[in-house]
Amino acid sequence: MNGSAHAFLSRYGAHVIHSDRVLMGPGPCNPYPEVIEAFTRPVLGHLDPDFLSLLDETNERLRTVWQTNNLLTFPISATGSAGMEAAFVNFVKTGDVVVVGVNGVFGNRMCDVATRAGATVIAVEEEWGRAIDPQRLLDAHPNPQMIAVVHAETSTGVRNEIAPLGANKGDALLLVDCVTSLGGIPVLVDEWNIDIAYSGTQKCLGVPPGLSPMTVSERAMERVLAKPQSWYLDLNMIKEYVTGEGARAYHHTAPISMLYGLHAGLGVVLSEGLEEAWKRHQACGDELHKRLPELGFELWAQEGHRLPELTTVTLPQGLDDKEGRQTLLERYGIEVGGGLGPVVGKVWRIGCMGHTARLRNVKMLLGALEELVAPNR
Amino acid sequence: MNGSAHAFLSRYGAHVIHSDRVLMGPGPCNPYPEVIEAFTRPVLGHLDPDFLSLLDETNERLRTVWQTNNLLTFPISATGSAGMEAAFVNFVKTGDVVVVGVNGVFGNRMCDVATRAGATVIAVEEEWGRAIDPQRLLDAHPNPQMIAVVHAETSTGVRNEIAPLGANKGDALLLVDCVTSLGGIPVLVDEWNIDIAYSGTQKCLGVPPGLSPMTVSERAMERVLAKPQSWYLDLNMIKEYVTGEGARAYHHTAPISMLYGLHAGLGVVLSEGLEEAWKRHQACGDELHKRLPELGFELWAQEGHRLPELTTVTLPQGLDDKEGRQTLLERYGIEVGGGLGPVVGKVWRIGCMGHTARLRNVKMLLGALEELVAPNR
Repeated sequence: MNGSAHAFLSRYGAHVIHSDRVLMGPGPCNPYPEVIEAFTRPVLGHLDPDFLSLLDETNERLRTVWQTNNLLTFPISATGSAGMEAAFVNFVKTGDVVVVGVNGVFGNRMCDVATRAGATVIAVEEEWGRAIDPQRLLDAHPNPQMIAVVHAETSTGVRNEIAPLGANKGDALLLVDCVTSLGGIPVLVDEWNIDIAYSGTQKCLGVPPGLSPMTVSERAMERVLAKPQSWYLDLNMIKEYVTGEGARAYHHTAPISMLYGLHAGLGVVLSEGLEEAWKRHQACGDELHKRLPELGFELWAQEGHRLPELTTVTLPQGLDDKEGRQTLLERYGIEVGGGLGPVVGKVWRIGCMGHTARLRNVKMLLGALEELVAPNR
Repeated sequence: MNGSAHAFLSRYGAHVIHSDRVLMGPGPCNPYPEVIEAFTRPVLGHLDPDFLSLLDETNERLRTVWQTNNLLTFPISATGSAGMEAAFVNFVKTGDVVVVGVNGVFGNRMCDVATRAGATVIAVEEEWGRAIDPQRLLDAHPNPQMIAVVHAETSTGVRNEIAPLGANKGDALLLVDCVTSLGGIPVLVDEWNIDIAYSGTQKCLGVPPGLSPMTVSERAMERVLAKPQSWYLDLNMIKEYVTGEGARAYHHTAPISMLYGLHAGLGVVLSEGLEEAWKRHQACGDELHKRLPELGFELWAQEGHRLPELTTVTLPQGLDDKEGRQTLLERYGIEVGGGLGPVVGKVWRIGCMGHTARLRNVKMLLGALEELVAPNR
């Protein structure tokens, strides 16, 4: 920060000049340039016909990305964790049995959110870094109202299997957290029989954080609570606004500029082609998974369940967690994520998501890491 | 929309070119140019030291705008209605008595939100378009847990008195909706003894919608619920992240780019000077209040309680609501708001907020209206 270079700015503007990072942590990622461009478009009112067209088109693009025909497919006007809350509070009432898979931070968060909604939670725990056996979730209770699981655990880099849950869920609703999977690896909502899913914009969709794309099946909407505990996340009321079917009744003021950004980010993904975007994320992950062990890092997530978009590794002996990440940030302007919970200080989480998911960034990081671990080798 | 002019765009980009409006409805307003510029800054991680500096500075700027020393002053990561929900669910438990002033849509919304939080609501109703006598709120119950009122009713353009409530609230917490007042007219949180207040970015702060600036007194935090029904809006957990006092524990991913925008918008307001910003809003309101009656409109909100930033008028005979607004939108690109509830089709809501609050926009609108009502005169 060079104060004198910005002396022409007022005292209320002077501190805003900040760093430019290559974001290779667990999210946010670097956004697509088209997204930033979209932020500069003139703000419209939330009932302006031009804005409603853009909202409709955004939802249609989301249907493609989610691989679903669900009418109620739209972005929640808040970040991914609000999507999680919307997913529970609209469907869970006091005493409902909810089976939750827990093999990381976000499975734990699901238990907390479901409990606050009044659920009787049955947590099916698995060691962090390992995937949950879907059969254990199916066997946890004979007739739960809901089975909830995280597809891509952002805290561990592990992919949990979803398809077997959808195929054998019985009467339960299947709720899936796709915050770190949507756009990065296949998420097939209709084919997998997912009832409720939510994501975040700041991971594999290449948009800054602020919205939570959501999709809800008609089967789920038949069981939606008439008056959920949350007004802001009430799907009955939101549906009137976000789908073109109702009277477009005003619920809350939509976050206009963020929606421009999401619309544009989805445009980038779909122009490239969804499968091409998956392949791009896969190629970055493959390269990291191959090269990081050569530098002394060990892949942490269970083999066969490793996310290409989020690689987790234990550190080489002699490489200090905090010091290493600080050097990456200060010398190279590269952000990677530290470990959480039981592996704090021991694990790094290296993301290649959205616009960050380019081989050039992988090469850049590997080059920096090579220097970083050199004294240890 | 000229499709051919944009043929170079891919099919996923082709529909994004939309209108540019002068936003003179009840919000959103046109944002300050500095805000749009801020959106283009590189995205940082939510734990990046540079971002945390910006967050701290944003909260400090908010303290000035709120005229408070409250430590817990920060933006909720969602729009104004989520601020309302946060204000209730963190403090109201089943059976608590909450007195709510109702003279418009947002007073009604408060009743709904408080009821979902388990409150026993005592609604003190007043005719729409008139202000609520503060004494009626104070007399409604001998010892309520909370008194809640809307400062600036966006549905009617009426300002309700706050100071007498703070001076005589007794043991109750005083909760005030400042969505349409903050930045436009004096909001003196500490002087008025307000315990909990929230606002929106898209009104008099000149920022697009997406965040809800909030402030909470220490007196209120002594009564905060240990585990509110909402995880996303849980102030105990949010406080750990947003105030510099805790370990900056990650709660949810902050909406980075929106925060850049809010930081910049507050910078514009404070560079101008908060009192100067109030005066600018007042000057626009004064001009509208003087000139609109000359064109056959009648001021609707009660005299002495008219908001300068949001003028409400009944229409001259012969001017059709929908047709008139559509002509303004299509011929001039000017958005004004229609009436809600009992005055739908009969009242217009004309906003001059944030960057829109310029006399040039008032002149522009008056010129357009002159033409619009000419056939009726």
